[in-house]
Parts: sequence; structure tokens; C-alpha cells
Amino acid sequence: MLSKNQIKYIQSLHQKKYRQQYGAFLVEGAKSVQEVLQSDFQVELLVATDAFYKENIRLTDRQQTPVEIASVADLGRAGTLESNNAALAVVRTKENQPLLADPDEIALILDDIRDPGNLGTILRIADWYGVRKILCSETTADVYNPKVISASKGSFTRVNWWYGDIAKFLGESAAGLSVYGAFLNGTDVHTLPFGKAGYLVMGNESNGIGPAVERFVSQRVTIPSYGGAESLNVGIATAVLLDNWRRNVT
Amino acid sequence: MLSKNQIKYIQSLHQKKYRQQYGAFLVEGAKSVQEVLQSDFQVELLVATDAFYKENIRLTDRQQTPVEIASVADLGRAGTLESNNAALAVVRTKENQPLLADPDEIALILDDIRDPGNLGTILRIADWYGVRKILCSETTADVYNPKVISASKGSFTRVNWWYGDIAKFLGESAAGLSVYGAFLNGTDVHTLPFGKAGYLVMGNESNGIGPAVERFVSQRVTIPSYGGAESLNVGIATAVLLDNWRRNVT
Repeated sequence: MLSKNQIKYIQSLHQKKYRQQYGAFLVEGAKSVQEVLQSDFQVELLVATDAFYKENIRLTDRQQTPVEIASVADLGRAGTLESNNAALAVVRTKENQPLLADPDEIALILDDIRDPGNLGTILRIADWYGVRKILCSETTADVYNPKVISASKGSFTRVNWWYGDIAKFLGESAAGLSVYGAFLNGTDVHTLPFGKAGYLVMGNESNGIGPAVERFVSQRVTIPSYGGAESLNVGIATAVLLDNWRRNVT
Repeated sequence: MLSKNQIKYIQSLHQKKYRQQYGAFLVEGAKSVQEVLQSDFQVELLVATDAFYKENIRLTDRQQTPVEIASVADLGRAGTLESNNAALAVVRTKENQPLLADPDEIALILDDIRDPGNLGTILRIADWYGVRKILCSETTADVYNPKVISASKGSFTRVNWWYGDIAKFLGESAAGLSVYGAFLNGTDVHTLPFGKAGYLVMGNESNGIGPAVERFVSQRVTIPSYGGAESLNVGIATAVLLDNWRRNVT
């Protein structure tokens, strides 16, 4: 059974401040919890209904995960989901380690993506298109936000990220590599011959890529419009651009 | 000023039952309201802050729209948005008229898309890719749901829809036309030569296209995966498929 203190601890992880302080975050719902139990993340506590625990005992035994059996009501009280009749996991955050695209690799750069739902969707899309590295500006939403984890549908276990100063990183590391950036006035993505590797930069939901990062974009790229909508959501645009890139180079 | 009865009437339109009974729906927020005032929809009442009204008087004069000036608090009380400091419009729904793709046109078919956010996103994507007609199964979310209207970012003013029996429609009308359907085991969208026109069918978030509609799909199509994610969100998939279609045929 969950103690009051455990519930309080789990609830504190709804907030970034406490996630950073404790070095832990929440994974909620049956499928995401199953995925994290099979990943290289360290689960410090599994809170599960009796039914979920029994069905997944193989997964918890493997890591010798500490388990508390809880009611659906307590799961609801501790977690952030409107309904969760299965499980939540308290998971150790990973160290913020620098990432560099390999010479034959496509990596993503997110410059000030603010919406957690968008960030989670982008993780899922990156995972679909085999992108393993995501470099985030410090103003990008916190990847450990429960909304991001939930929207990523388990893809957070297969994608790596780093948070830091993107302009500084590009200034120091990206010489000679292609840096594609999504703009409204770039080259048509349907005709652009993508290189084998490089970075794709996606910018803020309202303002796009900021001037500090824009300086390092070597190729501006645009999704052509055939109708009246002014823009596409940044998650949608990420998917369309990666799809075009993969179509060129696999 | 808004009367109690007006607030009650507007609140009733949060529910499908009353939208159908009164033949009216809500459009909320500055940008969407500006778009609907410039569209062919009939606005029966504009509720606006004094500031919004004065800034947009040209738009309301044009249609001789009835206007009530309201406080931000009353806008919040009547509408569905967490914050709305501008306006909401009560708008007449349109008649449910049959739609048929022209011989040179791409149209969308939605078979049981349940999530209002997904439906709104799909309207916006359709609008971006110049798709003017969306045929919806009766189980698809109500397009007049405030969440759909809001997620469409104004694109609901430029796209037409019809709700009805999709299998019956396809049985009667689609002979000789290409019906593309999104499946996990279809032809790779990167190599498929799309025809000039036809229908693209997108299915339910969990179960995909149902068997009744599947019978009429003449070409199964799939977005190739390069990583670990099991699926793409249906809005994302719609965008990627339409992008590939438009790349072939503009």
C-alpha cells in the first residue's frame, strides 16, 4: 500500500523543480510502464494494481524493481492521468550528456518548443523515423514533464536528448555538417536533395527558429502549401520533413 | 451585456445534443472569430470585449452581426476555453449535404476518428494540402465540437464536410475512382505512384479502417517506419500521406 509520504513524493514529481531536486520522473499507464521496465532506465518504484503486477511480474522480476500495490483511487491521487487503472513508475532521470550526430546520422534540434504535447509527439515521430538524438534549447519544454512522457507513447525509451545552448553547440561542433532549418520561405522540401546526414532544426510554435540559431542554418526548407491554412503544427511539420528526408536517404 | 439566458444558451452549445437542437455552434478566440466573420458561415451572435469589437468593427458591420459586449469573466463563463480575452461567436451550423470528389480532386474519408483534437488537426492539414471535402462516418467526432473548431485554427471555414454511411456512399458512388486507405501492411507511400484524384481513407485511432469500409479500398498504403515507434498519430499520418500525394500530383 502507498504511504502518505510516498503519495506526496510522487505528487511532487508533477513539478519540474522537484524532478530536478530528486532526479526522478513519472511514467504512467500500462503501456508506457511496460516499455520503461524493458528499457535501460532505472525504475526506483513501481506502483501497480494487483492485476497489472501479476500480469507483468516477469518484467519487474528482471530488474528486481521495488513494487507497491495500489488501488485505482490511489493511482489517480498520486499521478497526473485522468484515468489510470494499471500502473505508474517512478524513474531515475538520466545525466544531461552532450550529443553529436554521427557522420551518417540525422539528428533533431528543437529551438524553444514550448508545448509538452508537441514535444512528446516529436519524440514519437523521431522514433518512427529512426532519429536517435534530439538536442533541445534550454527553453524547450522539460522532456520529463508527465505530459511529454505520456504523449511520446513509450518512444522516450528509445530516443536520447540533451539540453543546452544550441547556438554555442552549433558554433563549436557543426562545421561542415548540414544544418537544415524549417522556415516559411525556404527551398521546397519536395525538390530539395537532402544530404545523407545532418541536423534538422525546428523552431518555436509561434516565432519559429530564433536569430541566434538561424545563423547556423545552412539550408532553409519549407513544406509547400496548397490551400488556405497559415501554418502546420510543429509536430506535423517535423513528421513531413523527416518523411521527405528519409525518402531521399535511408 | 450578456443576459443570464444568453449565457445559458451559449453554455448549452458545449453539448452536441443542443448544437443539433438549436442548429448552432461556438467559435472561440480572436483569430477563429475573425476568420468566421469573413467566411460564408452565418454568425447569429458575436460576444466580444469592447477592445475586440472596436478593432474588428469592419468585420461585424459587413454582416450586420448582432453584438453583445462582454467582460473577460463572462466570456470565460459562457465559453469552453481556459482563457479567452477577445470574443466568441454563436454560428449557424450548415446543412449536412452530400459531397463527391470531382474527377480531378483529392478528398478525405474519416472512418471513426473519435478524438476531437485529431479531427480539428485533420481539418487544418486538409486545408494546408488543398483538400476541400471531408466525408465522415457517423461515429466520427462532431466537427462542431468546440475542441474541433479550436484545433482547426480557422480551417473549418475553408473545408466542407458530410456525415453519413461511408460504406453505402462508396458502394454507390466510388466505382472507378481510386480509394486509398491507410494500413500498416500496404504499399510503401514513398514508391506508390498516386493517381491524379480519388479518396484517402483514414481509420480509427486504435483499430484503423473498419471492415465495412475496407472492402472499398482499392489501394492500401503505408508510411514506412525506420525506428521503434509502433504507430503514428492519425493526424500526423494524414499529413504525411497527403504530402506524398501532393508531391506526386499537384
